[in-house]
Amino acid sequence: MADEATLRDMREVNRIFDEVVIQQGDFAALDRVYTSDAIILPPGGEIVSGRDSIRRFWQQAARELGATSCRLNPFEVEVVGDMAYEVARGEVGTANGAIPIKYIVLWKREGGAWKWHRDIWNASA
Amino acid sequence: MADEATLRDMREVNRIFDEVVIQQGDFAALDRVYTSDAIILPPGGEIVSGRDSIRRFWQQAARELGATSCRLNPFEVEVVGDMAYEVARGEVGTANGAIPIKYIVLWKREGGAWKWHRDIWNASA
Repeated sequence: MADEATLRDMREVNRIFDEVVIQQGDFAALDRVYTSDAIILPPGGEIVSGRDSIRRFWQQAARELGATSCRLNPFEVEVVGDMAYEVARGEVGTANGAIPIKYIVLWKREGGAWKWHRDIWNASA
Repeated sequence: MADEATLRDMREVNRIFDEVVIQQGDFAALDRVYTSDAIILPPGGEIVSGRDSIRRFWQQAARELGATSCRLNPFEVEVVGDMAYEVARGEVGTANGAIPIKYIVLWKREGGAWKWHRDIWNASA
């Protein structure tokens, strides 16, 4: 289990992804979400490496999907060594209805801040 | 990075999944692959919890897919604390051609053996 301060830090990063990045469309805020050498493994495509490429990925994916929100609901958060992992469900809001997803994020501390370092998800239906 | 003995143990578990479980159809061998309280997050469906349910999942999924092999090609393996994580590409062989996938597995030691504890994947195309 993670301690309360760590959980609070992680909730704040997840809030930034949903409210600032997806809801407000501020993709520069992804600097506060992903480590500089993060990797994401999106469904239906190739692996995307590095925060700059990840920013372009989300900008395009959010537009193509018409995403208006991305609720993240972790049900398991564990700190292991200098990393942490999160196993979670989520829900992408779009004009055409909600898409239920699930994901695993490996978190890493970068410059004292917990950030997403490895990120993979898929649709639940 | 993981040490050589750990990497060897992990390669052997991955080999069992491909050659014994999928190629030979010996689903009882999943006891050597997953921890007893493992969780998998398959694309297009709900989370599956516990090794017995996971065994039923793979039995059905392999049949429905006509899977004849499942090659696993990790490109990142890190031991963190008493766990490890693997980031990888893979390829499911079927009668209708190969399906490229990617995945993250969180490994945990159970009874002295490294096993898959959390497992999520998606298709790359």
